[in-house]
Amino acid sequence: MKKCFEDFEVGFIYEFETSRLSVKEITDFAALYDPQRFHVDEVEAAKTHFGGLVASGFQTQLLCFVPFCKDVLLNSWSIGSPGMENMRWKRPLYPGEAMQGQIKLVSARPSSKRRDRGYLEFSLEARVNGDLTYTQEWVSIVLTCEGANEVSDS
Amino acid sequence: MKKCFEDFEVGFIYEFETSRLSVKEITDFAALYDPQRFHVDEVEAAKTHFGGLVASGFQTQLLCFVPFCKDVLLNSWSIGSPGMENMRWKRPLYPGEAMQGQIKLVSARPSSKRRDRGYLEFSLEARVNGDLTYTQEWVSIVLTCEGANEVSDS
Repeated sequence: MKKCFEDFEVGFIYEFETSRLSVKEITDFAALYDPQRFHVDEVEAAKTHFGGLVASGFQTQLLCFVPFCKDVLLNSWSIGSPGMENMRWKRPLYPGEAMQGQIKLVSARPSSKRRDRGYLEFSLEARVNGDLTYTQEWVSIVLTCEGANEVSDS
Repeated sequence: MKKCFEDFEVGFIYEFETSRLSVKEITDFAALYDPQRFHVDEVEAAKTHFGGLVASGFQTQLLCFVPFCKDVLLNSWSIGSPGMENMRWKRPLYPGEAMQGQIKLVSARPSSKRRDRGYLEFSLEARVNGDLTYTQEWVSIVLTCEGANEVSDS
């Protein structure tokens, strides 16, 4: 049974660990989406203040999102997101590093206009060896049980 | 000559148009990074409120970032970003749609602690046929001319 809006309780915590990126995974992603020299070239990256190749911040973000998407959103009546806030890259992510992360359900608010949905506000913190590395906050829109029933029946 | 912090003027505007995503480009991206049913499966997507397949919001974001990265950041002494704010998905992006976008330099502030860098605050709006589709704000850290000279000399 997929979770509907009412099945989520404020204070719910999801914990995850990200996969470790190889040099090639970092440079392949960056070549497509963020080809700055410290993301695509080990030799050039070593000359910068990073001291070596670091992952694009967008890749860091996606690494954190994928486990949550698969474990939480795919088992819910999620229908998207209106937006995201406070993305903060506190520390670069180097090849071979895993992030340990925690996502917390901060608030749950039924839509004031539509009885078929509600808004879940999540907050994420990810660390490498205890050092805060990445944070973000966002809202997921999830169908209420009534909204989910309407979709299932149609 | 790559631009240093002082070369950017508040009010600078960068305009771009994104490439159009095929169904396969949308589902390939989503299979890796955001495998929700309305991003990976045309038949399932048609049953949702979207009425058809839509791009992951992360792909929408990256589509807007790539032209700016290539045309502006790669021609500057950009050394990364501390964070991003106010990502808003105002409207879904469907296969075959191009976004017309504008990125504006909202503020430029030298670092109060380090004379080698400054902070540029950008604001982005992207539209499909005039309809606001995606917005975000972020800060890029760019070396000052003095900071760039130190790196070039080393």
